[in-house]
Amino acid sequence: MANQPLSGAGLRGQSAGETALCTVGKTGSGLTYRGFDIETLAEKATFEEVAYLLLKGALPNRAELDAYHAKLQSLRGLPEALKTVLEQIPKDAHPMDVMRTGTSMLGNLETEESFEQQEDATDRLLAVLPSIICYWYRFSHDGVRIETQTDDDSIGAHFLHLLRDERPSQLHADVMNVSLILYAEHEFNASTFTARVCASTLSDIHSCVTGAIGSLRGPLHGGANEAAMAMIENWSSPDEAEREMLGMLERKEKIMGFGHAIYRESDPRNAIIKQWSKRLADDVGDDVLYPVSVRCEEVMWREKKLFCNADFFHASAYHFMDIPTKLFTPIFVMSRVSGWAAHIFEQRAKNRIIRPSADYVGPEKSEWVPIEARE
Amino acid sequence: MANQPLSGAGLRGQSAGETALCTVGKTGSGLTYRGFDIETLAEKATFEEVAYLLLKGALPNRAELDAYHAKLQSLRGLPEALKTVLEQIPKDAHPMDVMRTGTSMLGNLETEESFEQQEDATDRLLAVLPSIICYWYRFSHDGVRIETQTDDDSIGAHFLHLLRDERPSQLHADVMNVSLILYAEHEFNASTFTARVCASTLSDIHSCVTGAIGSLRGPLHGGANEAAMAMIENWSSPDEAEREMLGMLERKEKIMGFGHAIYRESDPRNAIIKQWSKRLADDVGDDVLYPVSVRCEEVMWREKKLFCNADFFHASAYHFMDIPTKLFTPIFVMSRVSGWAAHIFEQRAKNRIIRPSADYVGPEKSEWVPIEARE
Repeated sequence: MANQPLSGAGLRGQSAGETALCTVGKTGSGLTYRGFDIETLAEKATFEEVAYLLLKGALPNRAELDAYHAKLQSLRGLPEALKTVLEQIPKDAHPMDVMRTGTSMLGNLETEESFEQQEDATDRLLAVLPSIICYWYRFSHDGVRIETQTDDDSIGAHFLHLLRDERPSQLHADVMNVSLILYAEHEFNASTFTARVCASTLSDIHSCVTGAIGSLRGPLHGGANEAAMAMIENWSSPDEAEREMLGMLERKEKIMGFGHAIYRESDPRNAIIKQWSKRLADDVGDDVLYPVSVRCEEVMWREKKLFCNADFFHASAYHFMDIPTKLFTPIFVMSRVSGWAAHIFEQRAKNRIIRPSADYVGPEKSEWVPIEARE
Repeated sequence: MANQPLSGAGLRGQSAGETALCTVGKTGSGLTYRGFDIETLAEKATFEEVAYLLLKGALPNRAELDAYHAKLQSLRGLPEALKTVLEQIPKDAHPMDVMRTGTSMLGNLETEESFEQQEDATDRLLAVLPSIICYWYRFSHDGVRIETQTDDDSIGAHFLHLLRDERPSQLHADVMNVSLILYAEHEFNASTFTARVCASTLSDIHSCVTGAIGSLRGPLHGGANEAAMAMIENWSSPDEAEREMLGMLERKEKIMGFGHAIYRESDPRNAIIKQWSKRLADDVGDDVLYPVSVRCEEVMWREKKLFCNADFFHASAYHFMDIPTKLFTPIFVMSRVSGWAAHIFEQRAKNRIIRPSADYVGPEKSEWVPIEARE
């Protein structure tokens, strides 16, 4: 049987399966989770409510949501063996390697033995991933062994509390909540597709999520907000930003945080996080980073018709909350694990192993030459 | 832009990229690595020579191969932090979780900082994966901390030496060599495709290999030889095997180690490993397991026209060498890491991020209901 020819590099535009979870850019700019507009969710929901929606298929009622919050709250503690592992990881390690290793280690200690455990295993990951990254960060950077079982009432507040050793303000907790909602799900992006390929072999959920973290680590996928931060923090005024940015464009340097593989007109997440970045700027009395960011947006639109994606104003927003730049992508993991898991459930429910073919471009027939006769 | 419709579940028959590494089943049964028939490689090459061929594109001459053996030999030691991690993993953990976690941890300690390091990072993995699994196995099962830097002259002999605490016979070293060659590469199977999706985000090689291990862990992918072993070890004679097998077929139970997603007529690896299983049976004086295996092959062909794949006679071969059944799939990893890495290099050399689309089957538009009004 002849293979179907390559439709386009990277399977672009080629359907690789069905999903009921998400639409991306259906009208050029929209994003929906199970049919709900991202704008509605970001305005009205908690991240835990959105995770519930993705994982269980419908919005929870009050009793269900309260029970879900309580469950997630109870699952923040780290096993001793996992703490010991995190203590072996050096300070200069890549934080995504820490997330990947922590998740993989958890799979040894709390192995998913059957798919009936998939929801519990996911809830555990949602609760414990912030603990994993903060335990490592605080141990390796501050030399302290933190207690990760807090009573903060949201995942976002829990993360900020562990990281900064104090309860966050309501504003900061609200920004984290919105940010986690915005990053929760995005159809068949590369990390989610990694999770689905792994799930299609009927492997366990920790393998799927570990693999997805590895893919999100790549600079073409996660990490754009870190790259945006590294750029804008160099500039001390909008005019300097404009001048430098025009230079970068002239030298054809890659500028991160703009444009998107799927969206054509705008990224609906940008308007949302931009508002929150503005509120944070007002709160801290910033008159540099936010105006610089706004100028970048104007220049890229004027010069290249490129819009800010979800990552660009996340950079300043996280920075205003004193989150170290290298922890930006781990926050993405804390959020997206909800989408990954929902896709794993979907793949398992209607599975065929994902095993494409390849176009062979190698030698037809190679002749063996004894080693003594090789040049 | 409308998506191309789903060509077939699991992307079957859909090309997802180019490769010069391997053909599978081109004439219904053949397998080639860079144009060399698997029969030739299994008869004439060492596994290290095959890894060199896959990774560097051509067979080595004598000086190159000697240098490669020496390099791999020098890289078998484990960092202290990795030993500490392996000591945290319980005895009853899934050995593939150990391989995944060990690889991920190595990525923290010896991070691939640029793609120029990809060959060195691969050689390190080839050398150290047997050390990782054996260090954990011997510590958790026998309570000893082994020294993993041996002077055995092949990866297969190194593995058997660490596992059994004595140098293997020439026969056993030869069987390991052939086995590692047979499992080294197999085109766009699910674990290799996982590695390529991860590589397409330009992530590091430890992320790619960690993800691939997670996919190989799935029972639809790796592990068929373990399942075959679990079946055949129950039977004490060929007649009992035939009787039980017919019962399984009648009850439509899944029988592992037969048939293949791509091969239609036979799996070329079976004839090769079957010969070696026979030699091992003669060597140990077996008159049960090998005859039982042969009868299984006859029954499945007679009843179902299903042939043995690479995994079936691997079960008895490994068993004759006293390898615990649960370590069969980790051996697969030690071998396939050569193919995974070669695919990662290929993907990086001509990359576009692998980001397919999906067919949306969820609700068109969902209306927000305030939580107090939800049922």
